[in-house]
Amino acid sequence: MKFGIIGTGRIGKIHGGNIAARLDCQVALVADTDPAAAEALAAATRAKTASIDQILGSSQVDAVAICSPTDTHADLIERAARAKKAIFCEKPIDLDVKRIRACLEVVKQTNATVMIGFNRRFDPNFASLQKRVAEGAIGALEIVSITSRDPSPPPVSYIARSGGLFRDMMIHDFDMARFILGEEPVAVSAMGSALVDKAIGEAGDIDTAVVIMETKSGKVAQISNSRRATYGYDQRVEVHGANGMVHAANVRETTVEVAGAHGFVRDKVLNFFLERYEAAYRNELDAFVNAVKAGEKPRPDGEDGLEASLLAEAAYQSWKTKQRVAPD
Amino acid sequence: MKFGIIGTGRIGKIHGGNIAARLDCQVALVADTDPAAAEALAAATRAKTASIDQILGSSQVDAVAICSPTDTHADLIERAARAKKAIFCEKPIDLDVKRIRACLEVVKQTNATVMIGFNRRFDPNFASLQKRVAEGAIGALEIVSITSRDPSPPPVSYIARSGGLFRDMMIHDFDMARFILGEEPVAVSAMGSALVDKAIGEAGDIDTAVVIMETKSGKVAQISNSRRATYGYDQRVEVHGANGMVHAANVRETTVEVAGAHGFVRDKVLNFFLERYEAAYRNELDAFVNAVKAGEKPRPDGEDGLEASLLAEAAYQSWKTKQRVAPD
Amino acid sequence: MKFGIIGTGRIGKIHGGNIAARLDCQVALVADTDPAAAEALAAATRAKTASIDQILGSSQVDAVAICSPTDTHADLIERAARAKKAIFCEKPIDLDVKRIRACLEVVKQTNATVMIGFNRRFDPNFASLQKRVAEGAIGALEIVSITSRDPSPPPVSYIARSGGLFRDMMIHDFDMARFILGEEPVAVSAMGSALVDKAIGEAGDIDTAVVIMETKSGKVAQISNSRRATYGYDQRVEVHGANGMVHAANVRETTVEVAGAHGFVRDKVLNFFLERYEAAYRNELDAFVNAVKAGEKPRPDGEDGLEASLLAEAAYQSWKTKQRVAPD
Amino acid sequence: MKFGIIGTGRIGKIHGGNIAARLDCQVALVADTDPAAAEALAAATRAKTASIDQILGSSQVDAVAICSPTDTHADLIERAARAKKAIFCEKPIDLDVKRIRACLEVVKQTNATVMIGFNRRFDPNFASLQKRVAEGAIGALEIVSITSRDPSPPPVSYIARSGGLFRDMMIHDFDMARFILGEEPVAVSAMGSALVDKAIGEAGDIDTAVVIMETKSGKVAQISNSRRATYGYDQRVEVHGANGMVHAANVRETTVEVAGAHGFVRDKVLNFFLERYEAAYRNELDAFVNAVKAGEKPRPDGEDGLEASLLAEAAYQSWKTKQRVAPD
Repeated sequence: MKFGIIGTGRIGKIHGGNIAARLDCQVALVADTDPAAAEALAAATRAKTASIDQILGSSQVDAVAICSPTDTHADLIERAARAKKAIFCEKPIDLDVKRIRACLEVVKQTNATVMIGFNRRFDPNFASLQKRVAEGAIGALEIVSITSRDPSPPPVSYIARSGGLFRDMMIHDFDMARFILGEEPVAVSAMGSALVDKAIGEAGDIDTAVVIMETKSGKVAQISNSRRATYGYDQRVEVHGANGMVHAANVRETTVEVAGAHGFVRDKVLNFFLERYEAAYRNELDAFVNAVKAGEKPRPDGEDGLEASLLAEAAYQSWKTKQRVAPD
Repeated sequence: MKFGIIGTGRIGKIHGGNIAARLDCQVALVADTDPAAAEALAAATRAKTASIDQILGSSQVDAVAICSPTDTHADLIERAARAKKAIFCEKPIDLDVKRIRACLEVVKQTNATVMIGFNRRFDPNFASLQKRVAEGAIGALEIVSITSRDPSPPPVSYIARSGGLFRDMMIHDFDMARFILGEEPVAVSAMGSALVDKAIGEAGDIDTAVVIMETKSGKVAQISNSRRATYGYDQRVEVHGANGMVHAANVRETTVEVAGAHGFVRDKVLNFFLERYEAAYRNELDAFVNAVKAGEKPRPDGEDGLEASLLAEAAYQSWKTKQRVAPD
Repeated sequence: MKFGIIGTGRIGKIHGGNIAARLDCQVALVADTDPAAAEALAAATRAKTASIDQILGSSQVDAVAICSPTDTHADLIERAARAKKAIFCEKPIDLDVKRIRACLEVVKQTNATVMIGFNRRFDPNFASLQKRVAEGAIGALEIVSITSRDPSPPPVSYIARSGGLFRDMMIHDFDMARFILGEEPVAVSAMGSALVDKAIGEAGDIDTAVVIMETKSGKVAQISNSRRATYGYDQRVEVHGANGMVHAANVRETTVEVAGAHGFVRDKVLNFFLERYEAAYRNELDAFVNAVKAGEKPRPDGEDGLEASLLAEAAYQSWKTKQRVAPD
Repeated sequence: MKFGIIGTGRIGKIHGGNIAARLDCQVALVADTDPAAAEALAAATRAKTASIDQILGSSQVDAVAICSPTDTHADLIERAARAKKAIFCEKPIDLDVKRIRACLEVVKQTNATVMIGFNRRFDPNFASLQKRVAEGAIGALEIVSITSRDPSPPPVSYIARSGGLFRDMMIHDFDMARFILGEEPVAVSAMGSALVDKAIGEAGDIDTAVVIMETKSGKVAQISNSRRATYGYDQRVEVHGANGMVHAANVRETTVEVAGAHGFVRDKVLNFFLERYEAAYRNELDAFVNAVKAGEKPRPDGEDGLEASLLAEAAYQSWKTKQRVAPD
């Protein structure tokens, strides 16, 4: 299976490396607005550089990995869909829900294969947790609790064009909640503020937020986000059910603990998302390749991307209007 | 210091035992509508049985412990306040906020010493957590997360007269949130449903709930409750701040872990509230006695009782009206 | 059941308090060479002071708790046995194995009830571990591993008359090993040195030691001791068997953990033996009282005391002679 | 840097894969007595098959990885040393100490670069533990405790030619002890028996063993081994020192824990040594390549291999003779 990679930044490199490491896959062409970046990834993966047009027009290319900025995603999905390429696209499809819906209409008409990069579903810990819940390890699901805190906030310049905490950061947690709940939330309430960095507040965004949601059948979920955690990249999920509780704890660099007069000290949790989710990115790419090779539609798909965005939008509106909001 | 105990049920026995175990205290008189229960506690604490009138009228009695049903609390506080007794009263003061306010008016006029039995503040784990937060161990507080799940739901007959989950169960968590936040919540959003037992839903109550709150300065709190947890009485608090995070984990019967072909198995968490909070009840009584002996006003006091009830009321209204509610 | 307490130091006070707290027991008489100490414990337990002769001669006294210095134990056991008192005696019976054997001969002739104070058997964690092993939770036992480290070394003056690390400190671990193994060790090898405090070495003793033992059927045990642990009183047991492994971990003051830029920090383990083994001392006394009331012989008994001393002696000889030694 | 790999079994494949994955290294030639196995690894690493003579005679080959059976190691090291190849050889150099010494004489004369595959030194957890100890995190080292249990015993046919538990299995722990102690043990006492499988005993070996050792300065070490652990591949190290204690705990597949009516259950520890030590094998190869490229002598070297074998031999003799033995 031959890939074209569009966008060779941090995440493009990850996917490029994972593709190149598979015996049955190959990075054929890579494109980037920065020629040097494209060259570097091409060299590292034994690929060639190309324009986006060349990638989409090449009969060599079976699949594209869209790793370019968010505002290009919807266009590229549509173009790749029309070019009959299998599509792996980083989240989100777009910051605007209308644009997402228009894009998914094209996907539907072309019957394109689209997978959206919610990598956390493929983390071995969260994947195992979801599987155990789905298999009934804790009986009927009742409460999902997600804690998600970045090690440190992005620059305010990034914040300004990110769509804000709910659409940029918590969208991962909305997808995780849906992944585990197995049922759509019908109401969202959000609260939040800028406690980490006042400049974030001045830019019209928040850096600390809590959200609660409920489904039609009465299941509830809670999400807590912060843009900063001094002890590492805090990523935890807990699910309570009729027969018990399951949680996936954080991941540390080593299992070493040092005891002394000041107590027992364990390592911080893994700080960097590429390290924390290294296996997740690899498993995610594997899932995409395996689905395409089997002629199946991979998940999370475009609809999953839409639903997560609808929840992010509802949370944003709830925070703005101080009302409980139904996603739509 | 000589006590009169009003109400000799489960909680009256706990306080009676703790009073009798102190060298500087004595249970002098005990009253209960069930003479046999009163006799039993009197025998166990070397006290005498008496009527409530006798207790309140006795010059021997310095302090009363009000351990009778909730609907008697406000009246007894008022009568004891007028009788110039130091007052320890189980939570809540009343299910009706107006009644609480009227009662506190009497407390104010009589300058009575009143402590309300939010025992969890005195649990060694939660007390240590609060102290560390207050002393700056994690810098400026940002997010408080409270998980509180009973081992199993009470009978529906109890539910019906309890005031419901928010006023009966989550009130402890509202007090805990206030204890740690050090600032009053100004908005409450609640969601919940009857997932554990349909009969609870039919009685107009819920058994599963999540709540988020925010303070004027933007601090946020989240609470999650269930009336049932198969793995024991789940009582956890986590606080996130500018410099780190602190949490108080559950308490187990032993530190034993058994490993085998099915994994590593640790004990359930302590199942019974009297066992889980044994030290908390003892420390709570100590705090009351020490404050009274020092001529100080103990905390949590009547105002703390009122504030927790206002939050419970707001959560109840939020759940009923599907609106965000400001406590008042 | 009425007790006479001989010796009102730290350990006498513990037992006195536990006796006084039982509704079915009473401290009747207390004796100490220091009249003020005797007075203090008598006051705290509503008892009277007396001479040892008076205690042993009193028809009021059913049982004696021997809490005096080690070199008085054997004599007092013999006298109390002849006086037909039930006997609870702190470990060890004597530092000299011959003296122990002579003492046990008197116990045998008088058919006296004797329990030796190996308190750790009654710690809830170790008791639960032993029970699970005995009930087959890990199948056939293969390896017992005991880690036992004091928070800080005793004064060298104490060391000098203590009998040394093996007889004074590790004797607890020999008893624990026997308790769990359910079979007598037939060979002991010891190594050790004075690493904590050179003065201990100059006094002819060691402060750091490791021992291995094996039973006739080939089960093995290992013990590690240090007179100093900066992180608290380190007390752990692990057992490996055909079907798995079980361990009892240390006990901490709180369940609080603080995370920050330097990692995740939990509390030190409980530092003080009276606090660490508070429940063990209470359960131990209960076991003695319950056995005496039921007309049964409590364990650990005099033979258990002898066997532990034989292992301590073997370990001492192994260390001295650099040979493997068979206890005898 | 171009490698020849001699032996393409399980461990040869691991090293081959790690070599091929480095951008600066290449597997040039592979040899095995089984041509199909050689072909398979050659195909997977883009190498060619060859005879051992061809590998050692090829001017293309800079380094050899000796992954063939133990009884070929010493000969191959000598031949490779004379052929001026850098040498990575799996442990042990030989089962016979005399043969090891003769081999190391050749290494010395040829000034060959030899690294012995004690992979556990390169496990991120144990490497971090050793580094922290060496950097003084716990002050002066006093006690090293190593627990090492295989998930299940090898076939008795393997046992018979393995050299026995001490030379085949515990040799890893002797190397680990030396790695951490930083000082040679001068005395060894061993006990052990065949508890897991009687057939192992009938073959003249044991499957359960404990060893203690001491160094000249009085540091002590204890090792416990079993050929079977139902809960996974149990690999732990703990070190006690003047200022504290450090331990490296086991590694699990996920961080998931499931709580229910039977307690809290975590995953077994990683069961398979290639999975448990995946990073260790990679880091080990990196260390070898980096040392060779820098013109440095890597560790663990031939002398380390000899010293570990001397300890294994001493332990074997101690077990056989029931004496404490000085390694030599």
